[in-house]
Amino acid sequence: MQPTIREIYVARRRLSGVARRTPLERSGWLSAVAGCDVYLKLECWQRTRSFKVRGAYNAVASLGAEARAAGLVAASAGNHGQGVALAAAELGAKATIFVPASAPATKQSRIRALGAELRTVDGIYDDAEAAALAYAEEVGACFVHPFANPLVVAGQGTVGLEIVEDLPTLRSVVVPVGGGGLIAGIGTAVKATAGSVRVLGIQSDQTRAMHAAFEAGRPVDVPPGETLADGLAGGVDASSYERARAVTDEIGLVDEAAIAEAIRELYRREGVVAEGAGAVVVAAVLKGTFELEGPAVLVVSGGNIDAARLAGILGD
Amino acid sequence: MQPTIREIYVARRRLSGVARRTPLERSGWLSAVAGCDVYLKLECWQRTRSFKVRGAYNAVASLGAEARAAGLVAASAGNHGQGVALAAAELGAKATIFVPASAPATKQSRIRALGAELRTVDGIYDDAEAAALAYAEEVGACFVHPFANPLVVAGQGTVGLEIVEDLPTLRSVVVPVGGGGLIAGIGTAVKATAGSVRVLGIQSDQTRAMHAAFEAGRPVDVPPGETLADGLAGGVDASSYERARAVTDEIGLVDEAAIAEAIRELYRREGVVAEGAGAVVVAAVLKGTFELEGPAVLVVSGGNIDAARLAGILGD
Repeated sequence: MQPTIREIYVARRRLSGVARRTPLERSGWLSAVAGCDVYLKLECWQRTRSFKVRGAYNAVASLGAEARAAGLVAASAGNHGQGVALAAAELGAKATIFVPASAPATKQSRIRALGAELRTVDGIYDDAEAAALAYAEEVGACFVHPFANPLVVAGQGTVGLEIVEDLPTLRSVVVPVGGGGLIAGIGTAVKATAGSVRVLGIQSDQTRAMHAAFEAGRPVDVPPGETLADGLAGGVDASSYERARAVTDEIGLVDEAAIAEAIRELYRREGVVAEGAGAVVVAAVLKGTFELEGPAVLVVSGGNIDAARLAGILGD
Repeated sequence: MQPTIREIYVARRRLSGVARRTPLERSGWLSAVAGCDVYLKLECWQRTRSFKVRGAYNAVASLGAEARAAGLVAASAGNHGQGVALAAAELGAKATIFVPASAPATKQSRIRALGAELRTVDGIYDDAEAAALAYAEEVGACFVHPFANPLVVAGQGTVGLEIVEDLPTLRSVVVPVGGGGLIAGIGTAVKATAGSVRVLGIQSDQTRAMHAAFEAGRPVDVPPGETLADGLAGGVDASSYERARAVTDEIGLVDEAAIAEAIRELYRREGVVAEGAGAVVVAAVLKGTFELEGPAVLVVSGGNIDAARLAGILGD
């Protein structure tokens, strides 16, 4: 179930001309804080403003024409839904996206702007997923899972290829973890193509399902709390846990205050807007969560944060 | 005094590995507003978060080793200063940057973070320029003008090369205008490499020196007012006017309310943070300043806006 490095290279060919190669930019500020060279992988500047388009497009483009014609269904905290909506638009398919009603307004409106049908579901991500699965079965459409799909994981792994190509001397990479698709893909890519690289995962302590699974050695039920890192919501199943576990050296947690500080300072110092899920990697450096060996790369996974929420954080 | 297309290609070779090739991204939202295909050239994601690094680096790298060793001096509303500071850091030179004391805090702090010496001057850009010129003469350093230097204009022209390569069918390009270096460079590049392209300049009505010069047929003195487009401050001399005039088809004005709306909506709809000077092109579309023929490109020239100011605009 682990994607192979070959599958990640296949994903890259599919993504050519669709996903953008995002910048890897050295941060003088974070290098000084960490005491080693720190770079930002700016997936917040990806199309749809998150890495999710990579995995979603890879999965959708891999479907046969008949399967695509039956329509696509996804459940999403908001960014995977944009990825599936973009893939559907580019490939001429119909997409129906289920999101929790609490998903940020900006994510909801951009899913609609991409031409997908949006359905909001009361509750958390898991409730949206249940509704999406039921709907997909009912209408005979193809369900594209946000992380428990090896083609999605392979697509996310293309982030890792770009990092190693731009910084072959890489020693550490810090990756936001929700369902674990991004870290499984990046971990697979960097461990196959670079030397000894430590793969470090980071979560909000309010959405600590993967951290808890690492502690227990198996998925455990951890209900999510209120968090700025809404993009990291969602539980972890056995295969997703195994995929992440296989390539992750350490997983850490940051609290909400640290995430808010990371969003604010990342904008002030570097002119980069990250959503909470993307800022957890910066919070980990500011709080010294890991002993970082440089050069280190922080994957700023997305930038979709509502204007009012961003204004509140920047105005503090 | 007009840079040739050959000089712009020479600038591109110098900028290889220094300036980033920024994305050209279609905006569904602005295309619907304008009634034609509209693309954003995202120089707000350039290194130093503005196009200014292109011209500054081209000018500094063109200097002999002896001239560079004598030190660099610049006057700047804030973005050119970051460009010169970055060029100095990469080429091992010392830079002293003069800015008006009213320049945004984020621009001032990043000039310092790049290792340059920052000097603030009471008054407007012209006062900072006078102080910088006096200092450069006193210490025998090289003054790098933000727009009245053909090498700077040639560097800015590389934006135009990228636009035409990414969108060969281009019909219109909308460019923010302060001193006119960017529009002179882009206009020269697109008129030499594309078919019939209309080059449209846009200013805040609070910094309308170039607009006034176009009306009068010569530079006239127009004191700048308070504006969100602080990056467009500064007067216009005869050679800068002539360079811009030679390649510009039309120049328009937008007011401050339209600039604030453009900053807010560009973030809400597209997840892009532009400073006022970069957002004037979006304001022009929202207000219908020009009859746009598509495909059209809006050059979002920079993204350096203070956190508190951005928070105030996004929170409205």
